[in-house]
Amino acid sequence: MNSTGRVFRVSLFGESHGEAIGVTIDGCPPGLPLATEDFNADLGRRRAGKAGTTPRVEEDLPDIVSGLFNGHTTGAPLTILFRNMNVRSGDYADLRETPRPGHSDFVAYKRFMGFNDYRGGGHFSGRLTLCLVAAGVVAKKVLSTVTIEAKLISAGGSSDIEKSVAAALEDGDSVGGLVECRATGIPVGWGEPFFDSVESVIAHMAFAIPAIKGIEFGSGFAAASMRGSSHNDPIVDDTGKTASNNAGGISGGLTNGNELVFRIAVKPTSSISVKQNTYSIKTGKVEELKVKGRHDACIALRVPVVLEAITAISLADLKLLAGNRL
Amino acid sequence: MNSTGRVFRVSLFGESHGEAIGVTIDGCPPGLPLATEDFNADLGRRRAGKAGTTPRVEEDLPDIVSGLFNGHTTGAPLTILFRNMNVRSGDYADLRETPRPGHSDFVAYKRFMGFNDYRGGGHFSGRLTLCLVAAGVVAKKVLSTVTIEAKLISAGGSSDIEKSVAAALEDGDSVGGLVECRATGIPVGWGEPFFDSVESVIAHMAFAIPAIKGIEFGSGFAAASMRGSSHNDPIVDDTGKTASNNAGGISGGLTNGNELVFRIAVKPTSSISVKQNTYSIKTGKVEELKVKGRHDACIALRVPVVLEAITAISLADLKLLAGNRL
Amino acid sequence: MNSTGRVFRVSLFGESHGEAIGVTIDGCPPGLPLATEDFNADLGRRRAGKAGTTPRVEEDLPDIVSGLFNGHTTGAPLTILFRNMNVRSGDYADLRETPRPGHSDFVAYKRFMGFNDYRGGGHFSGRLTLCLVAAGVVAKKVLSTVTIEAKLISAGGSSDIEKSVAAALEDGDSVGGLVECRATGIPVGWGEPFFDSVESVIAHMAFAIPAIKGIEFGSGFAAASMRGSSHNDPIVDDTGKTASNNAGGISGGLTNGNELVFRIAVKPTSSISVKQNTYSIKTGKVEELKVKGRHDACIALRVPVVLEAITAISLADLKLLAGNRL
Amino acid sequence: MNSTGRVFRVSLFGESHGEAIGVTIDGCPPGLPLATEDFNADLGRRRAGKAGTTPRVEEDLPDIVSGLFNGHTTGAPLTILFRNMNVRSGDYADLRETPRPGHSDFVAYKRFMGFNDYRGGGHFSGRLTLCLVAAGVVAKKVLSTVTIEAKLISAGGSSDIEKSVAAALEDGDSVGGLVECRATGIPVGWGEPFFDSVESVIAHMAFAIPAIKGIEFGSGFAAASMRGSSHNDPIVDDTGKTASNNAGGISGGLTNGNELVFRIAVKPTSSISVKQNTYSIKTGKVEELKVKGRHDACIALRVPVVLEAITAISLADLKLLAGNRL
Repeated sequence: MNSTGRVFRVSLFGESHGEAIGVTIDGCPPGLPLATEDFNADLGRRRAGKAGTTPRVEEDLPDIVSGLFNGHTTGAPLTILFRNMNVRSGDYADLRETPRPGHSDFVAYKRFMGFNDYRGGGHFSGRLTLCLVAAGVVAKKVLSTVTIEAKLISAGGSSDIEKSVAAALEDGDSVGGLVECRATGIPVGWGEPFFDSVESVIAHMAFAIPAIKGIEFGSGFAAASMRGSSHNDPIVDDTGKTASNNAGGISGGLTNGNELVFRIAVKPTSSISVKQNTYSIKTGKVEELKVKGRHDACIALRVPVVLEAITAISLADLKLLAGNRL
Repeated sequence: MNSTGRVFRVSLFGESHGEAIGVTIDGCPPGLPLATEDFNADLGRRRAGKAGTTPRVEEDLPDIVSGLFNGHTTGAPLTILFRNMNVRSGDYADLRETPRPGHSDFVAYKRFMGFNDYRGGGHFSGRLTLCLVAAGVVAKKVLSTVTIEAKLISAGGSSDIEKSVAAALEDGDSVGGLVECRATGIPVGWGEPFFDSVESVIAHMAFAIPAIKGIEFGSGFAAASMRGSSHNDPIVDDTGKTASNNAGGISGGLTNGNELVFRIAVKPTSSISVKQNTYSIKTGKVEELKVKGRHDACIALRVPVVLEAITAISLADLKLLAGNRL
Repeated sequence: MNSTGRVFRVSLFGESHGEAIGVTIDGCPPGLPLATEDFNADLGRRRAGKAGTTPRVEEDLPDIVSGLFNGHTTGAPLTILFRNMNVRSGDYADLRETPRPGHSDFVAYKRFMGFNDYRGGGHFSGRLTLCLVAAGVVAKKVLSTVTIEAKLISAGGSSDIEKSVAAALEDGDSVGGLVECRATGIPVGWGEPFFDSVESVIAHMAFAIPAIKGIEFGSGFAAASMRGSSHNDPIVDDTGKTASNNAGGISGGLTNGNELVFRIAVKPTSSISVKQNTYSIKTGKVEELKVKGRHDACIALRVPVVLEAITAISLADLKLLAGNRL
Repeated sequence: MNSTGRVFRVSLFGESHGEAIGVTIDGCPPGLPLATEDFNADLGRRRAGKAGTTPRVEEDLPDIVSGLFNGHTTGAPLTILFRNMNVRSGDYADLRETPRPGHSDFVAYKRFMGFNDYRGGGHFSGRLTLCLVAAGVVAKKVLSTVTIEAKLISAGGSSDIEKSVAAALEDGDSVGGLVECRATGIPVGWGEPFFDSVESVIAHMAFAIPAIKGIEFGSGFAAASMRGSSHNDPIVDDTGKTASNNAGGISGGLTNGNELVFRIAVKPTSSISVKQNTYSIKTGKVEELKVKGRHDACIALRVPVVLEAITAISLADLKLLAGNRL
């Protein structure tokens, strides 16, 4: 489904090379001050143009077509559009029947019986994360007391990220990365037992971002090697503060008053200039493929602001749900 | 929310030491043959009693109170009850105001304003995974062509699992583990763009299982260190088969016709006999705590069948949703 | 789907002659005082045994198996079971292939491919309204300030209801009725634009009650013959009070601070002793049928408390949703 | 919520005098042929300009910004925009604090704490039914075998509709109406027990249309005066065909193979030129009000195509859900 959230409900639409992409937020509280300028910082952080990111640069000006009046949200659905301008669909024309390895091309063709808009990955494109970032800007306003910060902590296995990316670029190749997200200022008790634990909700959203292969909270995979006596976080006061934070700020699926900490693994960009083999739907044989188009050498470079956005969207919904009963 | 799934919809209820726990499956297709005996194998695998698992052993006989008639599912909601018999609530009485580190005690107290049933973790208890296993038995029947198998591949960082567990037991401590799940026989195209990718849906369910700290699909966290040229899986035929399987059987969030592979990190059991510090709600001070009750030294031992269950539940829903449009 | 509501979420299960029927309330606020005795009054009002109602009388003692601890709701799912005791399934055995006119027998057989539990209407039975009444008792506690009262205002077209029912009984026939519901104490602003207007939510629930054929709010069908100058209700003060109440307490789909008023039409009970024709699935011909079993001559007699229940359930959900943002 | 449907999911956004209104259909099957011209007929039927309808005429050209490629639906969300062009917001400026009787002005002000876009009713405006009609055009394509037809059968209590409307117009007043909808070609078994009966789903949608005060299926309110022996519809063949159709094509909440028949009551337009009293938020007193702006004397004239649309949307969802299990 292209919607997520129970009361702060975010819906996406659009294809990479269609007329427009967009996002609707239903259940947005009324009275939040909001202006087009508020989107500049986060959209700018997501924007390509730096070394290691695609040369396709879009201005991506948000067009708020509903839910805003006199500079405040109205409580009616807030819809934000982004027109697709800088489109070179010709680049993709011959890919329809030559599915690119690592991409959705093949599965999309099968699932949608060949009717999917295949240009630039269509509805599966990472371009739709632009809508997530826009929704995240609004979600952050709902979370006034919460500060969220994500950053790329390694690429290609190295903390010298620039060097890793430059090396991949030189080879016409791409490289993966590790992104960490931390959020402070969250009170005790957000999260909805049994199925909508904080981990469940954030992981659900995180894996909607193309290229994410793993997620871990607090001690994460290291916990599999630990003992309880060193993993348990002793509670030290009435606010729930703990002496250590192996839990990553979550106990029993609910926020526990400590810093929320999690990390995601981003795979290397699937589009590379290096030659690859793939099955051709047209010829029925394995053929050699060289992907054209403009791409990112390290998509992880652009992920942090998207990860902040999905975190904010997730938490905004959980905040409103918790407020409901407390 | 205590429900999950869109058309194959699973809802849980019950507390660890209450009268009963149970599960309702709404949207279960009519005509599936089903008998009480069908639950024996999976419930047996989850059952405690082995070295490293809690001495609290329940017979856990499923009582199917609705949705079954003449040995087949009727298409009406299928509800399965498990009475809680072997309960020693006295063990927990003094824990109400002494929240155990690593447990939900503190956050549950805050979120539910002290009205939560705290005995044995109440609604947050791992005992509710019994209901997931029962729902999984039904889900596996919906997935007739699919084979799902999960196993514990390491504990305490070692593949000699028995030795790790025995050592922890000897120290009155606990130990974490790593569980891998593989599923074969899944056709191309299950999963729902944009938000309900296969990874999203499975991760959502996996993090509802208490004690899970991380999940990774295919190459997982290793992908963060890889290059695209080695990570991309070349497609080799019209069924979508790929030469390698770094994607773990998922492309663009949809199943791609290859084996589904993922791993989860299970933290060490929070209840340990070793003394710990925690904040006492009663005294307002940090006090020393020794957790009583009967517990697992390595909860990961009992996780594989639960992981199979949540995988089956997730895939059953995605199968029915995909069938809807194909 | 067998669930309704977004945050106060009610799910039904069970068949008329199965082991048990039941209801789960997910999202029930913690801390509501609740005891088995609280159900007596409403369950008693629904109970059969009066002239014009079926001789099948069940004690219908609610068994609260989860979500209750120390006399209060815990905030975890509240599940209430009713065992089916007074069952005479033999009465229905030959109806499997002789679908009764006015009943769900034929459509249930087709939709569920013959696997449905046909005894006594199975999952389609009016007996499931027992679960609605039980959920209504809890919902009324959520709505502390609101008073809801429904009553039968005519049967067979006459306000002398006893006489209409007695006459139908004498003829082995049945008769329909009109039920009116009024609720006071509702503040301005409950209801969720655009689709979840108060009328939408209540009508949705009302038409889940078997035998309901129509619903009208305020002036209702009379409005189709009126002019705006006499239909509009002048607002007279800051609480939203209006001089007349043609709107039935709802403006723009939201409660407007006035009394909520609506009426429903209940069809005559489909099961009658009078001979009828129907198509036999077995013989492939139209056959004469005389419905056996124990039935109500005027099911509308038992509807008021059910209507109050669905109104309470609907309003409880809308209250919690509105509270969310106000 | 501004979304409806479980698998064919329709979401609305926009305010009457904002930049645009629109609708997103998520879960639209891929491969449906669709062109802008396909909307002409139904949008034309809804359009104003005839005697008794508002002089505000909009061209209302649909702008399909996503989900369409090479003349077919792609399976990705289909979003259709309508720009608001012919807006005279000045007409409404002084109404902010003088809520019009019969309108949502007062409740919207309270619920959204004064942040709602009050111009022309904002998000509560009947203008949003334009989006429903557009979604209905797509839904009708999903329902290839089904024919739906709605018509106004009386206005102001008379079947001489033109005369009723002309008389109201002459008096600066408005008049209500009765609209009947019939649908043929629906197979047995659509509808989802227990809560999502066909009546529940259609009524839910119908009451989202502003100005609807009542709905009845088949015999409807007349059933309250009838006896079972005359109300029951004898089944005559294996397709479920019945000799009469008091059920209106629905048994046990599921379609029964006969014509679907229902009627709705439309209240007279709330905006009238006749002077009315209302409470002024500004002065705190009851004041005389004369509503300016351009309005319909009989909004029921424009309802039939909207009613067809909500019927098609409801049935499309139920068809896809039923297909899921049959």
